[in-house]
Amino acid sequence: MGKRVAVVLAGCGVFDGSEIHEASAVLVHLSRQQATVKMFAPNTDQMHVVDHLKGSPTEEKRNVLVESARLARGEIEDLGQLNVKELDAIIFPGGFGAAKNLCSWAVNGKDCSVNDQVKAVLQAFHAEKKPIGLCCISPVLAAKVFPGCEVTVGPSKMRDERYPGVPDTAEAISQLGCKHVCKHVDEAHVDEKNKIVTTCAFMCNAPLHEIHDGIGVMVQEVLKLA
Amino acid sequence: MGKRVAVVLAGCGVFDGSEIHEASAVLVHLSRQQATVKMFAPNTDQMHVVDHLKGSPTEEKRNVLVESARLARGEIEDLGQLNVKELDAIIFPGGFGAAKNLCSWAVNGKDCSVNDQVKAVLQAFHAEKKPIGLCCISPVLAAKVFPGCEVTVGPSKMRDERYPGVPDTAEAISQLGCKHVCKHVDEAHVDEKNKIVTTCAFMCNAPLHEIHDGIGVMVQEVLKLA
Repeated sequence: MGKRVAVVLAGCGVFDGSEIHEASAVLVHLSRQQATVKMFAPNTDQMHVVDHLKGSPTEEKRNVLVESARLARGEIEDLGQLNVKELDAIIFPGGFGAAKNLCSWAVNGKDCSVNDQVKAVLQAFHAEKKPIGLCCISPVLAAKVFPGCEVTVGPSKMRDERYPGVPDTAEAISQLGCKHVCKHVDEAHVDEKNKIVTTCAFMCNAPLHEIHDGIGVMVQEVLKLA
Repeated sequence: MGKRVAVVLAGCGVFDGSEIHEASAVLVHLSRQQATVKMFAPNTDQMHVVDHLKGSPTEEKRNVLVESARLARGEIEDLGQLNVKELDAIIFPGGFGAAKNLCSWAVNGKDCSVNDQVKAVLQAFHAEKKPIGLCCISPVLAAKVFPGCEVTVGPSKMRDERYPGVPDTAEAISQLGCKHVCKHVDEAHVDEKNKIVTTCAFMCNAPLHEIHDGIGVMVQEVLKLA
């Protein structure tokens, strides 16, 4: 039987929600590996709504669960309904939504708070020794909740225009007492002890298919551990 | 040099915009084939906004171009700016947005009207003998604008629970004087004369990776003709 995998969304759109192509890639690869997917999102207001054409916030209010349902084609549940006993693994796509709606990293960096439901769910999978996959900026969730864990958000602490946000994020992760591991967009890092699998995805300005394939590596490593 | 391909979006979400995973698949396959992509959408209000969690319309207003920018990560232009001379091919993902915001098929079926810009753009590519790719419900755009053309929206005119919407759509296409060709989700039909390439995508209740791969076949056929 296929593995049962939760995918946690944070809205729909890179600047205020889940990064759409990362979320879609996670779902394509899970489908290819014959996993059974259940999607979840917190039933809360988004931190804000960004007009993705202008790149600036609007006055609108949108709900994280309702907008995430666009990615899930309606098949999604309130994160509060997630039962770790019914699942073998959990995956968090990236996008600013992960750093705005699942925690406050986008505003507070390493001093952020993590949404209570998100924190409880992460701790539950960790306690059950079930694997956790994260990509792009989402690895900061693991870094905040599991001090001492190993994650990657990119290949280097050196400045590289292909990976503009990586050095600062990697530094903040180190300051949380975690180990930042340098990996390229086509690789995933596996923290065997904590069963945490991470890949940098859109932290890299790579062609879309390279990001798609790198997420495939992450998904495969998660399923191997499940 | 890679082919220059326009991708025309119709919002962001299966029930009132572009089907997200179809649009993402088109972009992943174009990236893999080293195409240069330019994204466009009409700068108009959506027909309506659907709460994708409840599956019912809301009172909100959203703009097709602004919402499409979520899929495009901000890199998108008004469809009115499209210059066929600068492009080698054009692709329309599906989703109800194609049948609600690019034409009125969702309301009027074969008696629908097609958005003026969409019609002009389709006619321009056709006149230049540049290929047009469409998937899911989008082939009805070609059927309406190019009577006599050949398209597929699925494998059969027979009832099949895997393809619930196909028989009625195929029948309406035939009534427009076009030839509906039966193809499965992993295939694309090429109308060589009109340079129109179609695949059924989410007209089939297939696992997501099969839809992703079928769209890959369509993209490859479009690029061969470009």
